[in-house]
Amino acid sequence: MAAILGRVFVYGGKGALGSVCVSTFKTKNWWVGSIDMKPNGAADANVIVNVEQNWIDQENSILNQIQEILGENKLDGVICVAGGWAGGNAANKDFIKNSDMMWKQSVWSSVIAAKIASQYLKEDGFLSLTGAKPALEGTPGMIGYGMAKAAVHQLTKSLAADGGGLPSQSLVATILPVTLDTPMNRKWMPKADTSTWTPLEFVAEIFWKWSQNQERPANGSLLQLITKYNKTEIISV
Amino acid sequence: MAAILGRVFVYGGKGALGSVCVSTFKTKNWWVGSIDMKPNGAADANVIVNVEQNWIDQENSILNQIQEILGENKLDGVICVAGGWAGGNAANKDFIKNSDMMWKQSVWSSVIAAKIASQYLKEDGFLSLTGAKPALEGTPGMIGYGMAKAAVHQLTKSLAADGGGLPSQSLVATILPVTLDTPMNRKWMPKADTSTWTPLEFVAEIFWKWSQNQERPANGSLLQLITKYNKTEIISV
Repeated sequence: MAAILGRVFVYGGKGALGSVCVSTFKTKNWWVGSIDMKPNGAADANVIVNVEQNWIDQENSILNQIQEILGENKLDGVICVAGGWAGGNAANKDFIKNSDMMWKQSVWSSVIAAKIASQYLKEDGFLSLTGAKPALEGTPGMIGYGMAKAAVHQLTKSLAADGGGLPSQSLVATILPVTLDTPMNRKWMPKADTSTWTPLEFVAEIFWKWSQNQERPANGSLLQLITKYNKTEIISV
Repeated sequence: MAAILGRVFVYGGKGALGSVCVSTFKTKNWWVGSIDMKPNGAADANVIVNVEQNWIDQENSILNQIQEILGENKLDGVICVAGGWAGGNAANKDFIKNSDMMWKQSVWSSVIAAKIASQYLKEDGFLSLTGAKPALEGTPGMIGYGMAKAAVHQLTKSLAADGGGLPSQSLVATILPVTLDTPMNRKWMPKADTSTWTPLEFVAEIFWKWSQNQERPANGSLLQLITKYNKTEIISV
């Protein structure tokens, strides 16, 4: 059995972006754990999230599963790419239902990922979270989504600050995509200009570089992923 | 019976700031409704919040009570001053428990207040929300609090933008206090310099002026309340 070169957990590891992250790190012969509602067969270990549970019970269940999987081992990275999307303004009949769902999908996952990082990340490890460029301003057509992503942005700043609770030399940074080039987005927006969509492989490669201590941004960075003519630029807010 | 000069609902109307808001508008002979866990005897009507309910059930219960109270009447203002405080960084054992509590206290209330405003506010009415100046940056010692308040700040921008769902000529603005001069803060910080604390009457007076179409800030404003030597300045972010 080959030596393990590094260990990473991918929160949302069964989703479109998460699956590409899992396979990217597996290709590099890393140990990869997935955290999601369903197992990812390509991962070395799977932590299953029970979405019927409340936030605290999810935390306990996930942390217990991770403890059992990792034992004394530490992590080089925690990648949180869990999330979802729902629209609606304040007058929408599903305003609160959708706000609730957005919070659970984006913030519960990000906060539990931060908790995992605080307990298991190596001194120079990294934590990546997923925000959204539109949430840097008002998002009247998708209010719940914007609130949840704004909370993730501010969480990033808190975690990067002195006393935020992460290991002292670690990195926390958040990607702010506009539109990711996922199968679902291709299905729901068949006529869109996909030359402005960000490829999933590009995002996974960012995380890979951070794991190699390459091109790490300043701690607490919010990194807009701006794709034009099929080229993506990373622009720190 | 005197004519009703105006109607306002105060979300958090039994709290320290909320009680002062209720009494301020009552003194001006306005009709005042309170929304809180317990009734405020000084209010004309009380909507009771059941904190055991989830967000959607709270929404339904509160909206039904308001419909019964208001009938065909509209509101001149919705003041949301509900909230709370809890500390803790990512390594704190209560990190997620406290983040959950902060979300419920600050965001559930603000979002339901926005929903009420979308349904009952007059064309030129106002909605005020409560943020926090520290949440404009990272808040490593109180991460859950910072996330919730950052979400309220972004909500303000969404509601003020075209298509946010509020009546077209209405105002939404959010106050960002540092420390309010409440009995609880006096109790827990007995040695603090209270000359930098913002008096509750000052805040209630801001809302009163907005109700009179006086000194209304730009729509979507985040208004820092900076108190020095017992004088408070309102500084838009």
